[in-house]
Amino acid sequence: MGLTIGVDIGGTKIAAGVVDEDGAILNTSKVPTPSTPEGVIEAIATAVQDVTKDHPDAEAVGIGAAGYVDDKRATVLFAPNINWRHEALKDKVEQRVGLPVVVENDANAAAWGEYKFGAGAGHDDVVCITLGTGLGGGIIIGGKLHRGRFGVAAEFGHIRVVPDGLLCGCGSQGCWEQYASGSALVRYAQQRAGATPDAAEYLLSLGDGTPEGIQGRHISQAARHEDPVAIDSFRELARWAGAGLADLASLFDPSAFIVGGGVSDEGDLVLEPIRKSFRRWLVGSQWRPHAQVLAAQLGGRAGLVGAADLARQG
Amino acid sequence: MGLTIGVDIGGTKIAAGVVDEDGAILNTSKVPTPSTPEGVIEAIATAVQDVTKDHPDAEAVGIGAAGYVDDKRATVLFAPNINWRHEALKDKVEQRVGLPVVVENDANAAAWGEYKFGAGAGHDDVVCITLGTGLGGGIIIGGKLHRGRFGVAAEFGHIRVVPDGLLCGCGSQGCWEQYASGSALVRYAQQRAGATPDAAEYLLSLGDGTPEGIQGRHISQAARHEDPVAIDSFRELARWAGAGLADLASLFDPSAFIVGGGVSDEGDLVLEPIRKSFRRWLVGSQWRPHAQVLAAQLGGRAGLVGAADLARQG
Amino acid sequence: MGLTIGVDIGGTKIAAGVVDEDGAILNTSKVPTPSTPEGVIEAIATAVQDVTKDHPDAEAVGIGAAGYVDDKRATVLFAPNINWRHEALKDKVEQRVGLPVVVENDANAAAWGEYKFGAGAGHDDVVCITLGTGLGGGIIIGGKLHRGRFGVAAEFGHIRVVPDGLLCGCGSQGCWEQYASGSALVRYAQQRAGATPDAAEYLLSLGDGTPEGIQGRHISQAARHEDPVAIDSFRELARWAGAGLADLASLFDPSAFIVGGGVSDEGDLVLEPIRKSFRRWLVGSQWRPHAQVLAAQLGGRAGLVGAADLARQG
Amino acid sequence: MGLTIGVDIGGTKIAAGVVDEDGAILNTSKVPTPSTPEGVIEAIATAVQDVTKDHPDAEAVGIGAAGYVDDKRATVLFAPNINWRHEALKDKVEQRVGLPVVVENDANAAAWGEYKFGAGAGHDDVVCITLGTGLGGGIIIGGKLHRGRFGVAAEFGHIRVVPDGLLCGCGSQGCWEQYASGSALVRYAQQRAGATPDAAEYLLSLGDGTPEGIQGRHISQAARHEDPVAIDSFRELARWAGAGLADLASLFDPSAFIVGGGVSDEGDLVLEPIRKSFRRWLVGSQWRPHAQVLAAQLGGRAGLVGAADLARQG
Repeated sequence: MGLTIGVDIGGTKIAAGVVDEDGAILNTSKVPTPSTPEGVIEAIATAVQDVTKDHPDAEAVGIGAAGYVDDKRATVLFAPNINWRHEALKDKVEQRVGLPVVVENDANAAAWGEYKFGAGAGHDDVVCITLGTGLGGGIIIGGKLHRGRFGVAAEFGHIRVVPDGLLCGCGSQGCWEQYASGSALVRYAQQRAGATPDAAEYLLSLGDGTPEGIQGRHISQAARHEDPVAIDSFRELARWAGAGLADLASLFDPSAFIVGGGVSDEGDLVLEPIRKSFRRWLVGSQWRPHAQVLAAQLGGRAGLVGAADLARQG
Repeated sequence: MGLTIGVDIGGTKIAAGVVDEDGAILNTSKVPTPSTPEGVIEAIATAVQDVTKDHPDAEAVGIGAAGYVDDKRATVLFAPNINWRHEALKDKVEQRVGLPVVVENDANAAAWGEYKFGAGAGHDDVVCITLGTGLGGGIIIGGKLHRGRFGVAAEFGHIRVVPDGLLCGCGSQGCWEQYASGSALVRYAQQRAGATPDAAEYLLSLGDGTPEGIQGRHISQAARHEDPVAIDSFRELARWAGAGLADLASLFDPSAFIVGGGVSDEGDLVLEPIRKSFRRWLVGSQWRPHAQVLAAQLGGRAGLVGAADLARQG
Repeated sequence: MGLTIGVDIGGTKIAAGVVDEDGAILNTSKVPTPSTPEGVIEAIATAVQDVTKDHPDAEAVGIGAAGYVDDKRATVLFAPNINWRHEALKDKVEQRVGLPVVVENDANAAAWGEYKFGAGAGHDDVVCITLGTGLGGGIIIGGKLHRGRFGVAAEFGHIRVVPDGLLCGCGSQGCWEQYASGSALVRYAQQRAGATPDAAEYLLSLGDGTPEGIQGRHISQAARHEDPVAIDSFRELARWAGAGLADLASLFDPSAFIVGGGVSDEGDLVLEPIRKSFRRWLVGSQWRPHAQVLAAQLGGRAGLVGAADLARQG
Repeated sequence: MGLTIGVDIGGTKIAAGVVDEDGAILNTSKVPTPSTPEGVIEAIATAVQDVTKDHPDAEAVGIGAAGYVDDKRATVLFAPNINWRHEALKDKVEQRVGLPVVVENDANAAAWGEYKFGAGAGHDDVVCITLGTGLGGGIIIGGKLHRGRFGVAAEFGHIRVVPDGLLCGCGSQGCWEQYASGSALVRYAQQRAGATPDAAEYLLSLGDGTPEGIQGRHISQAARHEDPVAIDSFRELARWAGAGLADLASLFDPSAFIVGGGVSDEGDLVLEPIRKSFRRWLVGSQWRPHAQVLAAQLGGRAGLVGAADLARQG
């Protein structure tokens, strides 16, 4: 199969694009994400038809969607942001666009994109984590995406790392994404700046002067300027991210981890502390080969490219 | 391939047995575990030759050994009990017995045995945990044993469930096996009996009257007699076991978990609380199919049978 | 000094009452709590003047207020509910009512009330905890209220019992009141009912059928009907309450603890599990006398009575 | 009363000394600590008689002993190192030396010494912690030693800071002294050096080259040479020490904390991170006066001097 179409359903916009066999995006179309389930279907169809005009030979559609996708890759069992409950997304979009459709969890799609066309080159057993608002991820074993028996594997963000810990939007407590994500980073910085404002002088000056006004980009900038609170916040994030990767190594034993998401855009500023924490917590570290911890390469395109490629594979 | 030989290297004895294609053990031979690495090789060879006398047509040997086994299933990188460090076990035993040898982590072998011939019937995606002195396990994905890129996957016992928690023999802290294992169960009972001896009157009467004298079998017997401290100890074990299974469901999404090891011999006395705790902590439980939590069926034979079958597959 | 006036500033109403030397309340006046700092001063003055009409010989006023009160018992440094920041409450009220005024933290006042006229009879070293919306408390050492050097001792609710634990309104994480309070009890029940609705059938039937609709009184009623989720929720509360009391015993070594607040209205339903947990976690329990764990006796009157008595002492 | 005798019973030696009203030690005598309870009594008597020769006018004896001392300051209820169980220490020593004897917990005695003659000058509400092998402490409220109703207050080392945390010699789990003490510091360094030996090159070079060979003095020396593992180990110690002091501030609200014990000999190397962590975790820090965090001044003499002064007070 040659060209396919990838669709990435985000919280604020829906992006579609035609992708070739090498993972290159040939064109794209973006529309705001509608607020109703029906509106989203409609928007997906419109975006797909839009990008297909230039490439009428595109043969299939891959959709990356947040939430639980069933093992047939057809139905969204539950979506956290859109009000989808057992939504037959594959059927509805196929009826609209007249092409075969594959639905995949968005983090799985992004992991697949990185594995095939990004940082995963040369690896067959890869675990990806995405440090964004939350913490998502995907698993590739023996060159295949591991979806689980019911299609809902790799929900990394919700493994419990602190018993009786922070409340999570999922209803549970102590979930990993409460400690290792862009949101967690901001909380670390805000708490520290509130408790010791003197030490956070530069960091506070980047926003509106209050701890609550600190945003992710302020922390990155302050860390590059050696602000102690910003550096300490990244270090705290890295403690939790690296310790979790060590657990995933004990479970999956991949040859490489790929770390993506907005937080990873900072490169070694965040990757190096994560690697250090990973080595610190890796069990049996002197008796086993160590997985590499790599920065993602595709940025925000990973999901669209990955979804398109999964559709290509059918 | 027809008959193969399984070998199970335990802390106190080494067992070998000829196993047929249906997982039936046709004969066995047991010898005490020698204290030197060379002695263990010798004992394996002797036991294999012993069981081969009756079945000269046995075609291969599968060995289950505690520790890290490399991805070629040939070398034991590190064994916790025997002083093996990068021990070329496959080559040495092949030279002695003149048959092809496959080496596997013992918990992986046991998981494979249960999957093929025990509680795993009808499932293709299974995660097994073994609650013995420690906590071991194995992963079957798509009908295949998941060994990891370097051969050291499924080290369940050493994922961190309590930051800054109990010291573990592995050098880390807060490892799952410190909270969910036969050893943990005994600690729970001993601590509780020490703090509130009145409530543990029956339990204490089964041993030498002191908290330190409480053993695993006492706790089981006392629990069947409704002893509150014994029941509370099982409940504590189940809290940690079930919560951990919920994490594994988020990661692997299998169709079934199999719980083995000495603790699971108590059946529903321990399985039911584990199931309850699993449901309590399963993230998104109302939106996803639930994996079954099954009791292992093969008992102590799982490792030997599994190793033999892995040798059959080559 | 004979009669004095106690004032209890609550979130919804302000109560004043004339109290005699035996802690008997002779009359009371209640007004809704105004929303402005000035309004609250006004309302206090009105309520005091109201109750003084019948007892013109009342000689002093004691005010119990939530928040930090300075070591001179004159200024509210910070109040969580009313917008008081360094509010000179003593001076302002004295100007209005023409009587000497003493300001005290409300939990300290309640502790003093229980110590003098309630469950504390016969004890000179008492630690009180109040399990209400949050967790407050007071310390009596050698028959004297321990206020601390700066007046802000006994903030029990905000000691950290879970590192990296639940967020607290105070800005910190893992505070005791997030685990041992009426609010925590409701969270325990809601979480459990959400995860295992079958087991919570009776409990859910008492509210609107949803986990979110469960209220404290439902849990009490359900526990009395042996509802397993309600019982388990009380047990969880008791685990944290008792473990915290064990810590306080290591620190203060009182002869008695008094447990008050709405949760304690359930009596032995909650006190017995707390006592059990206290014994479970008390360090060196076999080598030391055990403090008693007593139920408070004055209910909601403790604060008013205690504040009045503190004013009597000057 | 003028001169009194202080006795400090340590794990390896017993020291006695005559102390004047200004806390000056006029002479001392030291003997190895015998292994039997009777031997210890004998050794105390000998040491007291020895120092009394030069100062026959010494009027009383104060003994500081590890363990629980009853509220009459006469009987050691339980001593962790010496096999004392309900030992009538006061009576036995009085019979031998013919002087009135007061027995006090050794950490209480040291706290009293620092309060009266060391870092506590000018403060009336002081909490002392001693970071040695374990974590001990003492409480001074209103210029008086707070002993508790049964004499066993201020057992700081055994408050629980990590639920389900490290095992403690007391039988409980997660005790503060497992995270904040000289022993904890060594464990931090050994774990880190084992996991990341490259980063600990200098630290490892100070001992025998193995993580197990790292001792406390190596960590101090390495930290002064900017060794990252040593610095990180002190920082970890300080995280736990400072967070615990913040809890003690919420409970006791002293005007000053005094930090003693071998770890505090490093001065600001350890005090500054502790102060930083204290400010980080102090609840309501912007609305309350902050207690000072001071280094102890008397070193190992605090216990002897404090015990002598407590005897002076009768």
